[in-house]
Amino acid sequence: MNSLPRRVEFHEEGPREGFQMEKKTYPLADRLALIDALAESGLKQVQCASFVSPRAVPQMADAPELFARLRKRPGTRYTALWLNESGFERARACEQVDLDGKIVFYVTEPFSQRNNNCSVAENRKRQLAWIDRYIALGIPLEQAYVVTAFGCNLGGPVPVTAVTDVVRWLADVCADRHIPFPAFYLADTMGWANPKEMQSRIGAVRQLVPEARIGLHLHDTRGLGGANVLAALQMGVDLFDSSVAGLGGCPFAGHKDGSASGNICTEDMVFMCEEMGINTGIDLEKLLEASRLAERIIGRPLNGHLMHSGTLAALRA
Amino acid sequence: MNSLPRRVEFHEEGPREGFQMEKKTYPLADRLALIDALAESGLKQVQCASFVSPRAVPQMADAPELFARLRKRPGTRYTALWLNESGFERARACEQVDLDGKIVFYVTEPFSQRNNNCSVAENRKRQLAWIDRYIALGIPLEQAYVVTAFGCNLGGPVPVTAVTDVVRWLADVCADRHIPFPAFYLADTMGWANPKEMQSRIGAVRQLVPEARIGLHLHDTRGLGGANVLAALQMGVDLFDSSVAGLGGCPFAGHKDGSASGNICTEDMVFMCEEMGINTGIDLEKLLEASRLAERIIGRPLNGHLMHSGTLAALRA
Repeated sequence: MNSLPRRVEFHEEGPREGFQMEKKTYPLADRLALIDALAESGLKQVQCASFVSPRAVPQMADAPELFARLRKRPGTRYTALWLNESGFERARACEQVDLDGKIVFYVTEPFSQRNNNCSVAENRKRQLAWIDRYIALGIPLEQAYVVTAFGCNLGGPVPVTAVTDVVRWLADVCADRHIPFPAFYLADTMGWANPKEMQSRIGAVRQLVPEARIGLHLHDTRGLGGANVLAALQMGVDLFDSSVAGLGGCPFAGHKDGSASGNICTEDMVFMCEEMGINTGIDLEKLLEASRLAERIIGRPLNGHLMHSGTLAALRA
Repeated sequence: MNSLPRRVEFHEEGPREGFQMEKKTYPLADRLALIDALAESGLKQVQCASFVSPRAVPQMADAPELFARLRKRPGTRYTALWLNESGFERARACEQVDLDGKIVFYVTEPFSQRNNNCSVAENRKRQLAWIDRYIALGIPLEQAYVVTAFGCNLGGPVPVTAVTDVVRWLADVCADRHIPFPAFYLADTMGWANPKEMQSRIGAVRQLVPEARIGLHLHDTRGLGGANVLAALQMGVDLFDSSVAGLGGCPFAGHKDGSASGNICTEDMVFMCEEMGINTGIDLEKLLEASRLAERIIGRPLNGHLMHSGTLAALRA
């Protein structure tokens, strides 16, 4: 456990990814209260909503109003998701959105087609256009995601070279444009990762871009979420997307049962880090209040463990 | 990941620990069907029932009948739990019980009192009597458990010396009696373990008894079950108690919410091992049939992940 990072950063996805996949639309006031509880716990980045087609995702139709009504706490970034130019323009029009330049790569044709309606190659061209758009607007390119980086329910196994090809291509693009290489996220969108493959793919990326920060976007689809986080921590990874109470999941991943496909649970993973002496900057008891609030809002028992058992703080005293 | 074992053994606890904690008593035929499905998957040891007071634990009152009606598969051991001499005698009277000599140590006074109604020291004396009873009956001493080996909800933090004291004492007892040192189980009865402490406690035990096999009995109370298993695998541990579908939990552990306190989930952990190239000897698809059967019997969604998302086998093809 020598190579564990001293400090780890969690980016909260629950208010966006968690509520987006629910069939029901939840009241704006409830979602605002949850976002505020999450920020109060010390989370430095909370993805609040997505600016996508209100017809396709009615749950997020009120994103502009949500941002307009946000009471922002200093020290927290309130981010949003967009998938096309019109969504980005709607996000840009909301003064309170903290714009973070991000791009998303696909590595299998069927998922690129289903989620994005274009080929892997065409998507890569589009990401190049995004990079140039961000540069033109003075928005730093912060995050590059590779979705289904460990395997794809629709396209099958993903060779590690599919991931490293993206790294090489992006490194050239960044060098050409004299911009820093962004945080490079491996997304286990469909729960294919295991700890061994985790370490091997992180190692392969790091070999190509040793200075780059590596991030992980993991789902606990097959019960290996926590073990995968540990394997990544052992490789020095210090940046994770996660969802309060384990909310979330990709509605297009083709799982029989949506309940299994949630993101790794923020408070359980924060607890693991803190128990191992890794600083997260998060007040765990306050975060648990947020996860219990999420459960009250959603109205059914959620997947988080710590929210039902409590921390060890009181038991140690 | 160099020190991962090549082969790992899972001892199934679901039929005993899982059903014992339920308020309801489930039909014998259902429990027999589950036990058979588990054995069919290739599990080498299945704990089927406990011989405890029928007044205290009415769910297990039919243990003798259960064993009488078992259709045993070759290659699987069908074990039972007992806590006192009368329970042991009832188990011994059942021809089909595979008797495994086991002893249980406590390291905190309040849990020893609550679970066992005697002091830690008195319990140790009783375990000595068990060892001599097993020797007299020609039953090999196979397993020694330390419960709450990582911490106790009732007694607070457990120093590592409380565990190593048991190891030293037991090593002396075994040497005196010229019997082999048994598999030594660290039980995280109440979900206090984290991966760092896991490795440090395993290391401390191994230093004292380098040749001894170390086993783990883990609960996923706080969401770290899978990460703790990984940490143990990295120390070469190859023996785990687990429960199908994540059933189980200790009714006397004092959790607010029993649903959080289940054992580590057999099929999720088997999946992790197999994905990392570690042989378990288990047919995962058959094991998933058993976990889905458990869910149908219990009649509510259970905690396992893989049972709701499926393996990767079909998706890889």
